[in-house]
Amino acid sequence: MYVIPPALDRLIQDLNRLPGIGKKTATRLSLNILRRPAAEAMTLARDLADLHKSIRLCSGCFIFSETDPCQVWGDPKRNSTQICVVEEPADLMAIEKTSAYKGLYHVLHGVLSPIDGIGPEEIKIDELVARIRTRKINEVLIATSSTVPGEATASYIIRRLEKEAVRVTRLACGIPMGMDIKYADEITLGKAIESRQETG
Amino acid sequence: MYVIPPALDRLIQDLNRLPGIGKKTATRLSLNILRRPAAEAMTLARDLADLHKSIRLCSGCFIFSETDPCQVWGDPKRNSTQICVVEEPADLMAIEKTSAYKGLYHVLHGVLSPIDGIGPEEIKIDELVARIRTRKINEVLIATSSTVPGEATASYIIRRLEKEAVRVTRLACGIPMGMDIKYADEITLGKAIESRQETG
Repeated sequence: MYVIPPALDRLIQDLNRLPGIGKKTATRLSLNILRRPAAEAMTLARDLADLHKSIRLCSGCFIFSETDPCQVWGDPKRNSTQICVVEEPADLMAIEKTSAYKGLYHVLHGVLSPIDGIGPEEIKIDELVARIRTRKINEVLIATSSTVPGEATASYIIRRLEKEAVRVTRLACGIPMGMDIKYADEITLGKAIESRQETG
Repeated sequence: MYVIPPALDRLIQDLNRLPGIGKKTATRLSLNILRRPAAEAMTLARDLADLHKSIRLCSGCFIFSETDPCQVWGDPKRNSTQICVVEEPADLMAIEKTSAYKGLYHVLHGVLSPIDGIGPEEIKIDELVARIRTRKINEVLIATSSTVPGEATASYIIRRLEKEAVRVTRLACGIPMGMDIKYADEITLGKAIESRQETG
């Protein structure tokens, strides 16, 4: 019986631990790495080993950054009275791509999920409240996902900020650009009607 | 404007080079690795760096192995007069899982594909012919994929082996187990009818 060589199997197991990488994909990737030049595997190994050494969390925004304060917080051109609250770094990257937002960020690093034992203490909510109290913040834009845990997290933050002297806003909910109305789901379409806007 | 920290971006680029890993998946994986303990990234880095050092190609079968001859070739319980020809190591693993084959293997490491400049010299076909001439081989089971390049490679090998004193066989083509006949494509169904077998 053929047994996968241990060195190959170890890599398959490692990759299999990553999200969305099943046993088959891990095997395919490992075999591919093995068939390419050894130098490529070494580059990947070096960059992996370097990752945690080079990158930390910004102590204000909790953005992954090589500097603290991070480049966003440290940028004098950004509006430091606005904070956009996102679940995770990938959300921040998506918002940055739009170029529609010029304030600071606050990364929660998770969403409330009682089933998984994730309460307010497990994500950066106390840090958000403290930040609003100690810095001159006018607006908090809550940009959590439009999912059940995302909505629950947004509601919780809104309640926590009720007594703070700050404007709390949320991303608009409605029909995505380019979408045919007849294909929109009824909840989205309902929200789009409720939030309808004056023309002209 | 937020710029992805260079150390993170390097890892994203590295992962993006792997097959089936687009920019978005590479970003998601990199952020996930960053959020897990540094020790996991270090383990992955070490196993990657170790991969090419530990694994070589068996000089007979061209199987990835930590030993030469590989464990299949070196196994006295296997039938050393049978050779199963596969395109790549993943095919071999799939065949081994069936436990239906007890002979040796020969990994081509590719298929003929003139468009990509891959001719017979680029894959291990000469090595296969030499192996058949120098060792006592009774049967060559061609197990290339049932795709256009796989079929072309099989035809080429069959022609190359015409004058050799060896039985050449191919995997049976037909209806997959559990498949409803009405959903089988016409080519597969046609092959299944042509290759119909006597009952009892």
